[in-house]
Amino acid sequence: MKTYMPTKDDKFTFGLWTVGNRGRDPFGDAVRPALSPIDAVKRLSALGAYGVNFHDDDLAPIDATPTERARLIREFKTALSDYGLCAPMATTNLFYDPVFRDGAFTANDASVRAYALQKAMKAMDLGVEVGAQIYVFWGGREGAEVDAGKDAVTAVKRFRDALNFLCEYSRDQGYDYRFALEAKPNEPRGDLYFPTTGSYLGFIATLDHKEMVGVNPEVGHEQMIGLNFYHVVAQAIEAGKLFHIDLNDQKFLRFDQDLRFGAESIKTLFFLVKLLEESGYSGPRHFDAHCYRTEDAEGVWDFAAGCMRTYLIFKEKARRFNEDPEIQSLLSEISAGDPAVADCSGPYSRARAQMLRGVAFDRAALARKRLPYERLDQLTIELLLGVR
Amino acid sequence: MKTYMPTKDDKFTFGLWTVGNRGRDPFGDAVRPALSPIDAVKRLSALGAYGVNFHDDDLAPIDATPTERARLIREFKTALSDYGLCAPMATTNLFYDPVFRDGAFTANDASVRAYALQKAMKAMDLGVEVGAQIYVFWGGREGAEVDAGKDAVTAVKRFRDALNFLCEYSRDQGYDYRFALEAKPNEPRGDLYFPTTGSYLGFIATLDHKEMVGVNPEVGHEQMIGLNFYHVVAQAIEAGKLFHIDLNDQKFLRFDQDLRFGAESIKTLFFLVKLLEESGYSGPRHFDAHCYRTEDAEGVWDFAAGCMRTYLIFKEKARRFNEDPEIQSLLSEISAGDPAVADCSGPYSRARAQMLRGVAFDRAALARKRLPYERLDQLTIELLLGVR
Amino acid sequence: MKTYMPTKDDKFTFGLWTVGNRGRDPFGDAVRPALSPIDAVKRLSALGAYGVNFHDDDLAPIDATPTERARLIREFKTALSDYGLCAPMATTNLFYDPVFRDGAFTANDASVRAYALQKAMKAMDLGVEVGAQIYVFWGGREGAEVDAGKDAVTAVKRFRDALNFLCEYSRDQGYDYRFALEAKPNEPRGDLYFPTTGSYLGFIATLDHKEMVGVNPEVGHEQMIGLNFYHVVAQAIEAGKLFHIDLNDQKFLRFDQDLRFGAESIKTLFFLVKLLEESGYSGPRHFDAHCYRTEDAEGVWDFAAGCMRTYLIFKEKARRFNEDPEIQSLLSEISAGDPAVADCSGPYSRARAQMLRGVAFDRAALARKRLPYERLDQLTIELLLGVR
Amino acid sequence: MKTYMPTKDDKFTFGLWTVGNRGRDPFGDAVRPALSPIDAVKRLSALGAYGVNFHDDDLAPIDATPTERARLIREFKTALSDYGLCAPMATTNLFYDPVFRDGAFTANDASVRAYALQKAMKAMDLGVEVGAQIYVFWGGREGAEVDAGKDAVTAVKRFRDALNFLCEYSRDQGYDYRFALEAKPNEPRGDLYFPTTGSYLGFIATLDHKEMVGVNPEVGHEQMIGLNFYHVVAQAIEAGKLFHIDLNDQKFLRFDQDLRFGAESIKTLFFLVKLLEESGYSGPRHFDAHCYRTEDAEGVWDFAAGCMRTYLIFKEKARRFNEDPEIQSLLSEISAGDPAVADCSGPYSRARAQMLRGVAFDRAALARKRLPYERLDQLTIELLLGVR
Repeated sequence: MKTYMPTKDDKFTFGLWTVGNRGRDPFGDAVRPALSPIDAVKRLSALGAYGVNFHDDDLAPIDATPTERARLIREFKTALSDYGLCAPMATTNLFYDPVFRDGAFTANDASVRAYALQKAMKAMDLGVEVGAQIYVFWGGREGAEVDAGKDAVTAVKRFRDALNFLCEYSRDQGYDYRFALEAKPNEPRGDLYFPTTGSYLGFIATLDHKEMVGVNPEVGHEQMIGLNFYHVVAQAIEAGKLFHIDLNDQKFLRFDQDLRFGAESIKTLFFLVKLLEESGYSGPRHFDAHCYRTEDAEGVWDFAAGCMRTYLIFKEKARRFNEDPEIQSLLSEISAGDPAVADCSGPYSRARAQMLRGVAFDRAALARKRLPYERLDQLTIELLLGVR
Repeated sequence: MKTYMPTKDDKFTFGLWTVGNRGRDPFGDAVRPALSPIDAVKRLSALGAYGVNFHDDDLAPIDATPTERARLIREFKTALSDYGLCAPMATTNLFYDPVFRDGAFTANDASVRAYALQKAMKAMDLGVEVGAQIYVFWGGREGAEVDAGKDAVTAVKRFRDALNFLCEYSRDQGYDYRFALEAKPNEPRGDLYFPTTGSYLGFIATLDHKEMVGVNPEVGHEQMIGLNFYHVVAQAIEAGKLFHIDLNDQKFLRFDQDLRFGAESIKTLFFLVKLLEESGYSGPRHFDAHCYRTEDAEGVWDFAAGCMRTYLIFKEKARRFNEDPEIQSLLSEISAGDPAVADCSGPYSRARAQMLRGVAFDRAALARKRLPYERLDQLTIELLLGVR
Repeated sequence: MKTYMPTKDDKFTFGLWTVGNRGRDPFGDAVRPALSPIDAVKRLSALGAYGVNFHDDDLAPIDATPTERARLIREFKTALSDYGLCAPMATTNLFYDPVFRDGAFTANDASVRAYALQKAMKAMDLGVEVGAQIYVFWGGREGAEVDAGKDAVTAVKRFRDALNFLCEYSRDQGYDYRFALEAKPNEPRGDLYFPTTGSYLGFIATLDHKEMVGVNPEVGHEQMIGLNFYHVVAQAIEAGKLFHIDLNDQKFLRFDQDLRFGAESIKTLFFLVKLLEESGYSGPRHFDAHCYRTEDAEGVWDFAAGCMRTYLIFKEKARRFNEDPEIQSLLSEISAGDPAVADCSGPYSRARAQMLRGVAFDRAALARKRLPYERLDQLTIELLLGVR
Repeated sequence: MKTYMPTKDDKFTFGLWTVGNRGRDPFGDAVRPALSPIDAVKRLSALGAYGVNFHDDDLAPIDATPTERARLIREFKTALSDYGLCAPMATTNLFYDPVFRDGAFTANDASVRAYALQKAMKAMDLGVEVGAQIYVFWGGREGAEVDAGKDAVTAVKRFRDALNFLCEYSRDQGYDYRFALEAKPNEPRGDLYFPTTGSYLGFIATLDHKEMVGVNPEVGHEQMIGLNFYHVVAQAIEAGKLFHIDLNDQKFLRFDQDLRFGAESIKTLFFLVKLLEESGYSGPRHFDAHCYRTEDAEGVWDFAAGCMRTYLIFKEKARRFNEDPEIQSLLSEISAGDPAVADCSGPYSRARAQMLRGVAFDRAALARKRLPYERLDQLTIELLLGVR
């Protein structure tokens, strides 16, 4: 009997802002009291989490005095140490304050861009102090409602300038950061400039230090517009660019819901977990979600426990999928090729091209080959439903 | 008084499959007779188009004999020459025949992958024969409904193998092709592996000959899932990767509509035209659209004329936008920066970082700067509506 | 050990067009041979189905001679009787033929409207002959791409005229039909006039014989635009208007996929089955879906078997949900009210209004009441995953 | 030369919450200072508005003392009178306070339902005091994320109980209210129970006093899920149920944007204005929108002026559309019918049915009739772009 209890080896992390979410939304006020970082650490540790992540302003208010800030950081580090958690990822809040209302790195106002850089540098220092090795960039305000007002080509250039600058800063300071870029199609801006993880993969290829920059895909951000998140992550992994991942859930075609992992997209998230576990991805499994606004302060921990538990259930099902003889037999049948064409495949050579040009393919015969995907998908569903 | 009549200098092209679309859809039969490539050339030339593009199977049926094929190609070339059109882009149909029902380059069956490569090579030869210099790849069946059945990481690798092979083939043959990859999120497959132009920008960075591969964004393919097409193209242009473009229109959140250019997305397509015209993009303006199923054979030409005419109207409005003093004054105001921070911006140096860290920004003051986007957008709308 | 084998008591039905779907789509040709109605009956009966439904043109080609038509109908009736199936629902194909390219009952051309009425009358006669008692109307072409061309108010009036006419026809002929209206937001038209089941519920209220008209909600049609199908059906049931139901599945924000029941939306379809089974709905459970285009002729039956099997799995899980003590205890807690306000609820009376106005509610106390939805949803997910 | 300046005859209204919106969003804080109702009245009057609408809590804080409340209402009424505005519509805020976090009329907690009723009754009294005749219900929290926790059939019944109660209350008090129900598919809840205007049209038919209840469609609420808003309003008007309307704009497939009227959906909103102006709708043209978060306090008025101005531009274009000879000639052609079938149409009679059954329609000929929608739509676009 599996217990699905998380351990530190599972590398589950939460953001301070996730368990600390107070339930404010565009049409309603906060419903839960503030949660101190110390209490977050305590409770997450008790539930079996591995780490906790933060924005600069989660640890100390944006207007904190240096003394206050130092104290808050000290207390947080002590709590991490006392409760055996780490803080593997850090990030900068470049979206909440009104100063960023038209963007941070892409703002039209050069002073805002400079301030954003400064804030990111300081937050990187803070991250290092707390032990973070992954630095996430989510450009929550890097977008527009009025395309007349901000040239989209310029916006890309400005974003690159900022990233190049901060890569150099990280290296110059001797920091060991890997940067992970997090895409989102819209919200809070009408349109954000890098709407999908794919956009960032394209962008990274244009950076000065592309080797230190990867992506941080978030389930809900791709699912808002109906993308297949398993496919998104597969491309990132295949490119060696999955540096971090934000796990949550989301109904397609809705505002950013940040639901408990596995609350909606059972089949897709099963394939996601299977991929993460089998791909050799060794980074944190970070839950960037929050509980329903209907919960009280205790309900937060039901939410957090549920995220981890469902992940482990999917992990166990992935094992069973691999051991299911009927499923594996269908997969073999589907993948079986014709040995006669084996020589056609392989890297280009003039000889191979010549040979390939000469093969007389029997199109109709190839089209007749059985592809029992209905049966395979049905077995997958039954495995997921626990009836095999 | 502007006439908005297209000329060859406008570089407007249409696909044979666009004006030749017979109106078949998932719930209904063809409503228009077949249109011969020759007639398409004749009519498009009369309307002021610059060129016509084709899939291999548009020119000659997939089962044509070599003699038949040669005759059809000869006639087509003669027509091009007679009517003064060129054929700047070619592509392979890797989606219609049942053999491709589970993909072409990513099919699980190695024989299908080999046949797809062969078909692409032959189609590239055909393209060269007709004078095409851009080769578009749209992987209409490169996707899945059943993620259990096809490993998404493997799919990316297979697609790369095919592209690397064909790049080498092009070079080895001395062809001068530039490849343009065309993304689409879904339809006809449940999910396609490279759902957005961004995904392809990321993928291109992993190719052996990345310099010869760019993208072919299509308005409708990005708009199906609500992306801002102007932003999509801006990123591609900024990366030097806009090798071709498919112009049409589409309501968000719908099946692939392929509507007449400008029929729906007035504001976005205005900014698109402005961007294309001002960016130095010198490639074809290709319309990949078709007329409503309610049209008869003559209505096709109303459709084609409308695409070009609306493009030219937007182009003229872009000129006016640039000359409108109130709009330009608002833009100046929005972009005006504080000279005091000028030194903060620029490439990284330790000195600049040091200096930037020391600046005392007045967050509240920066947040108070006026950003009159409502006024600017209203003026844009009024310019578009022809009331300024 | 449950076997999840369907029996006739489960009232599972399929359309001839569903198992007979040949896999044609907008980008590809048919991949499967035609399936005769007789073979469909035979195979469905063997799988445990209860009935089979049809469009007029599914039974006999639109151009069949009277003799041919009579023979086809006779053979179909014999097959039904031989294999113990019924044909509880019939419908008219008012979308495939080019004559309907701009609509049937809402067409601008009065002759087309008249022809559509005639075709529906004849199809109703045919339905009665085969024993159907439910008559479904799906207006596949009742929409527009060009709102300039068809007045939307007039379209509603025309649709009402047709429905009123056909209600009278049914009564006048002594037919026992109940009409079920099936909504869809778009596809194949850019927009359809009654986009949601809700629209039809509103429309029915304006009919002459509203008592004989209800709705036929289809999972995929509401899910295309992201609606909660369980909510949609709940409203229809509550209004006494669920006359028929089309079961399938669909990812949100995509073309009409018609996937195998339960292939995607596990949680929603579980609540749907629970609702259908507990609401007293006694009509057919009709699967309006088709297998993937990748299947061959035999794969069709994997698909059909899977639809029924997953329904039965959900039905069994609904039973367990009702018997799960922890789930039921959470539900009791959530629903528990304060007896003190019991008198406030009930139909309006001046006294009750007066009393209610005078109650001093403790808003803060009410807001503190625990609502453990995270826990409840997690238990639901675990029940669905078979780990409770 | 048209000036497009609004006058009171245009019946433009704004909500206090619209011009008073402070720019808070899920990822950011307020950016604008609070605007007093008095200042809102003053500025709107100066811009040419006709009226101003409010939620109960917009006029007086939810915790105001009776004295404070009375003073605020008195001052507001004085301002209305001083500046010549009316307050034609009122509504209750049943979504902001934590007490409503799981719904108001549909809450699981009977005390919350009772409190919601009480709050609505008091707000109706307040509305009457200020002169409102239309009462809008938007059930912002009437939904769920966890379908396990709230029975959707029960939710509909509870909502009906509340509406029936409040209808009686209105009548019993001698109030002259017409109720207008406002649908929304989701946000802030994962799913709202009445997701579309259609759902409410269906629901209204089940009320005790259906004659006093209609709908208040909002552009953005239907466009979030891609519905054609012109069609939505046409159905409501045709049913005699358009009691109020919320004008704004929205890109499809996004969170609730509440954009300036006409900022995005030029063609659809043109047809909407045309419909409103030609249908005899005599109610307010209410703008339920707010300015971009990037605006400062003055930008609010650019936003408000733009809403009205664009409405008037569309109104003028509707006039031109009706006077454009080429457009009108196309419309005549499209609508022309065959006099021979005139007798087929009309209410049901046995004779007419008999006759209709006997007509020999020439399907192919009907399918050949020209339907020049491409041309018509192109002319519409050109009229909208001001180049005809």
